[in-house]
Amino acid sequence: MTISIRKARTIIKAALAKGREAGMKPLSVVVLDAGAHTIAFEREDGASPGRFAIAHGKANGCIMLGLPGSAIQTRADAQAYFVQAMNGLYAGDFVPVKGGVLVRDAKGNILGAVGVTGDSSDNDAVAACAGIEAAGLVAES
Amino acid sequence: MTISIRKARTIIKAALAKGREAGMKPLSVVVLDAGAHTIAFEREDGASPGRFAIAHGKANGCIMLGLPGSAIQTRADAQAYFVQAMNGLYAGDFVPVKGGVLVRDAKGNILGAVGVTGDSSDNDAVAACAGIEAAGLVAES
Amino acid sequence: MTISIRKARTIIKAALAKGREAGMKPLSVVVLDAGAHTIAFEREDGASPGRFAIAHGKANGCIMLGLPGSAIQTRADAQAYFVQAMNGLYAGDFVPVKGGVLVRDAKGNILGAVGVTGDSSDNDAVAACAGIEAAGLVAES
Amino acid sequence: MTISIRKARTIIKAALAKGREAGMKPLSVVVLDAGAHTIAFEREDGASPGRFAIAHGKANGCIMLGLPGSAIQTRADAQAYFVQAMNGLYAGDFVPVKGGVLVRDAKGNILGAVGVTGDSSDNDAVAACAGIEAAGLVAES
Repeated sequence: MTISIRKARTIIKAALAKGREAGMKPLSVVVLDAGAHTIAFEREDGASPGRFAIAHGKANGCIMLGLPGSAIQTRADAQAYFVQAMNGLYAGDFVPVKGGVLVRDAKGNILGAVGVTGDSSDNDAVAACAGIEAAGLVAES
Repeated sequence: MTISIRKARTIIKAALAKGREAGMKPLSVVVLDAGAHTIAFEREDGASPGRFAIAHGKANGCIMLGLPGSAIQTRADAQAYFVQAMNGLYAGDFVPVKGGVLVRDAKGNILGAVGVTGDSSDNDAVAACAGIEAAGLVAES
Repeated sequence: MTISIRKARTIIKAALAKGREAGMKPLSVVVLDAGAHTIAFEREDGASPGRFAIAHGKANGCIMLGLPGSAIQTRADAQAYFVQAMNGLYAGDFVPVKGGVLVRDAKGNILGAVGVTGDSSDNDAVAACAGIEAAGLVAES
Repeated sequence: MTISIRKARTIIKAALAKGREAGMKPLSVVVLDAGAHTIAFEREDGASPGRFAIAHGKANGCIMLGLPGSAIQTRADAQAYFVQAMNGLYAGDFVPVKGGVLVRDAKGNILGAVGVTGDSSDNDAVAACAGIEAAGLVAES
């Protein structure tokens, strides 16, 4: 099983709707497949130009390590050099904060990851989870 | 003026519809702003994983040089080293074939570019133009 | 469905056996998943040190473009700048010759790719196909 | 003397067996030669996609510096900029934690290195040592 483009659209639409509903700043949302390749992305009007890279780096870290953004952020807080090492390995495509969320099916298989950026990292994760759940999938943030 | 996320969605939706209507292979479509930064992207089910990079490279080349994909392809055919030089300049984010299309407003200002990949380069350009025109903008392919 | 480590071992073992049986030079074989991430690799004694990169670049090209090595080689022969462009996009991880082989299941889904290097490109592809078929999977070379 | 593909297979098989016996998470194991070039690699089912890079970065650091992962980790803890500098030197292929283990012959010559990732860094090193010792070689972790 994989994330279809139809489900990816639902994820993005619902994540952005969550952001509007909660009064968040303009968000950008990326959906990656299980190999960390981009399925879909949207950047809301008013977001800064560099948001694709940030969203992608959050989601890519989740896929590469099989961990949600919160766990990666904890590790980054504990070992300063961890972020440096991962940035080197993945050519900079690694952003170790919340807002990177794993997407699993009901059996726990990793189907992909979502990366959200634009508001606080905590809020970014809330929006990502809202999107994933709207698509009937399981979010691990 | 810029390409709003609403217009970017229209571009992608209409480009993909053109592809379906014409029986093209699964397409991937990216919309970049005038600074070559990603506004939106979709990869249809069945497209290969590496399509974001190809779509982005087509559109990025258009923005960076201010030329449509057809002109870049003509130059590439004539001067083999041209592609090497551009790849070096733009860190590899350069694909010198049709399917990269400039987006202009009615006065001729460049607002961004669209990159389409998945079918023949000629067909990719046809789908990109259909998307841009559906959004009420001017395509230069 | 994916390629299990057990199947990846079978692919490598049978590809190397084919090489020995046919008197090929020392071979190196990589098995990638559908996202182009490495599952397993072996380099035979006597092969040169740089073989991982060559095997990976053959298989990665197949995954990124959804095409077998023979089709990529044909395109490379026709458009010299194609190889330059793909090398730029995929950070050099692209080797456009035979020996990169897509791995499909019985329904035609792409499960991954195998890259073989060490003998002629034609023989490399023969070894890759022997490995894939020994694992009960479908090779597109 | 060098690590033959036969010995590399023994190292991987025994390292993975140690992991299974001790109830570790899915492991990935790479064996590099004395020039830091990959001889063999396996990623167990259930491991995240980015494991080749991590395993390789651990082993590469050992070879490049002639030090085991524990010594590199100690240095990283003491001097934050050390990791930055090494990442720059070795193009990111550097992971400064346990689980990178030097492989020596009975006379103390460095034959290569093993990198293991998937469980805690301490456990990764235990599995690597089990593999190296099963091949009749000397591990420095």
